[in-house]
Amino acid sequence: MMTDVVEQNGNAKSRQGGERPDAPAGATGTGTEDTAAAARIVAIRERIDEIDRTLIELWHERASLSREVGATRMASGGTRLVLSREREILERFRQELGTDGTQLALLLLRAGRGPL
Amino acid sequence: MMTDVVEQNGNAKSRQGGERPDAPAGATGTGTEDTAAAARIVAIRERIDEIDRTLIELWHERASLSREVGATRMASGGTRLVLSREREILERFRQELGTDGTQLALLLLRAGRGPL
Repeated sequence: MMTDVVEQNGNAKSRQGGERPDAPAGATGTGTEDTAAAARIVAIRERIDEIDRTLIELWHERASLSREVGATRMASGGTRLVLSREREILERFRQELGTDGTQLALLLLRAGRGPL
Repeated sequence: MMTDVVEQNGNAKSRQGGERPDAPAGATGTGTEDTAAAARIVAIRERIDEIDRTLIELWHERASLSREVGATRMASGGTRLVLSREREILERFRQELGTDGTQLALLLLRAGRGPL
């Protein structure tokens, strides 16, 4: 997927110096030389970056909570995992996000199991 | 991973009728018969479910925004993708979440590219 497209727009280092919506495409890293389009892309990317920060925070919180569930259960003499719960989560993500959802849920479940 | 643990606690259908912290383990699906532990697990799971709903919402929003970036760029005569941006995102998730982060970022990027 990524190898069939030629990189045409500067590099990560130059962009870290700060993107200006009115700068040429090579400086903004937006992939367009159209000023208005570049400005729109920069604005949307700010929201995407905000989403990514939230996703990372929630990932950490979820993994921590899930490990706490497992530890609480085992400390009380219960099972390490509850597969019916894992199946529910997989099914929910699959219904909402399709096959990508299944992959996402598998990653989330694994992160929540902690060290064996 | 999942096949080495025996399922001991009811099933998804019976749990959908509502979990009561004071119900036996078979009914709560918490994997423990300890009442206090089961109550704690039910409470933590509520927060996990809330996180999952947020993750799904943010996933949809991110994919939509990312497709808008691509459409905006192409409509202005720019490139379909900007690989330096994708590399930045991959690197951020890898730094924050390790190899799971790389997998998560690959899923996010794919969802954001939309139909080719």
